[in-house]
Amino acid sequence: MSLPTTPTITAFERSPDRGRGLARDMRVRWALEEVGQAYKVRLVSFSAMKEAAHRALHPFGQIPTYEEGDLALFESGAVVFHIAERHKGLLPDEANARARAITWMFAALNTVEPPIVDRSMAVVLEQGKPWHAERLPVLEDRVHVRLSELSSRLGRADWLDGAFSAGDLLMVTVLRRLNGSGLLEKYPNLCAYVARGEARPAYQRAFDAQLAVFTGS
Amino acid sequence: MSLPTTPTITAFERSPDRGRGLARDMRVRWALEEVGQAYKVRLVSFSAMKEAAHRALHPFGQIPTYEEGDLALFESGAVVFHIAERHKGLLPDEANARARAITWMFAALNTVEPPIVDRSMAVVLEQGKPWHAERLPVLEDRVHVRLSELSSRLGRADWLDGAFSAGDLLMVTVLRRLNGSGLLEKYPNLCAYVARGEARPAYQRAFDAQLAVFTGS
Repeated sequence: MSLPTTPTITAFERSPDRGRGLARDMRVRWALEEVGQAYKVRLVSFSAMKEAAHRALHPFGQIPTYEEGDLALFESGAVVFHIAERHKGLLPDEANARARAITWMFAALNTVEPPIVDRSMAVVLEQGKPWHAERLPVLEDRVHVRLSELSSRLGRADWLDGAFSAGDLLMVTVLRRLNGSGLLEKYPNLCAYVARGEARPAYQRAFDAQLAVFTGS
Repeated sequence: MSLPTTPTITAFERSPDRGRGLARDMRVRWALEEVGQAYKVRLVSFSAMKEAAHRALHPFGQIPTYEEGDLALFESGAVVFHIAERHKGLLPDEANARARAITWMFAALNTVEPPIVDRSMAVVLEQGKPWHAERLPVLEDRVHVRLSELSSRLGRADWLDGAFSAGDLLMVTVLRRLNGSGLLEKYPNLCAYVARGEARPAYQRAFDAQLAVFTGS
């Protein structure tokens, strides 16, 4: 099923991640590719993101947003859920399995992502502070607590609960934010899990599309 | 509609908030009260939360969990959504309004809550550190950015998007985590918004139930 109106999403005009697919539009692009829904992209500069026109779409002045006819949404998790509800392929049909997949969506964003973002922010913003050397290991320990718990739950399974779902899509994008930190490497099953996500054709198409914005090709 | 099986949730045996309704079981209790669904509570100690039996329900060793027949869920946002999907009263019927209410659920948990939790953690864990006096204002500025954006969006409305929804329920519980910080007081419309949530009979019943656990009455 494709939508009567092609949705438009927003993305960074110039992503601070330099096209590594770590900005939150990647999640929405990936979800759209998984379900085979075409989409348009409107690029937004850092200054335009904070202006009234963009804030009418996104009260917190961020990307991505999602516009489809009369509907305007923000928050990558909510947009991925919206796509998953309206198309087959990102949530199981069976009611209990569906509820568990949604649980993993919230777990990715509200339990696993916050300590990962905290660590990244400290590395970016507190690198030169006298306390950085003392704080960083504490922040990394907090990340390790969540990673070891996630690793234990995943075990030898391919995905978090049965077939690939929107919960895995969000979790893989959250774990990818650790790229370059060296923290994920302690958990071979989580590395393989992320690689499994990245190997999906829909992921590849989404990645290439966001990279093309950065390279200008 | 009530469920064929009365659901069981978990809560802290002894909540670190001393019954102020800031633990995450409050969100689930409130949602259940809004829709008129009876529920049972199983109390869990801090040590039991980290044991295998509880981790089978909640891989991250936290509360709340939610059990209903064969279904076991965790993550307060996911549980509130599950309740909202199965009962009337927490999500609008109209599709676009429903998608926007779900957006506010994710915004509460993934955009507004993280800086609030960061500030609380610094106050609890870094109070005695030499850098605390320099870091705290930075953390509070981050909270103020989100609060001022939220305040602008709410404006003079009672709720974030039309009628009270699961998005408001989560947002009110997130903002309540600022109790005692003095930060929310700069935004009279957000204070009134929280008070409006707290004045709901369902909120009151949920609050009393979690307080009774703490007082042992």
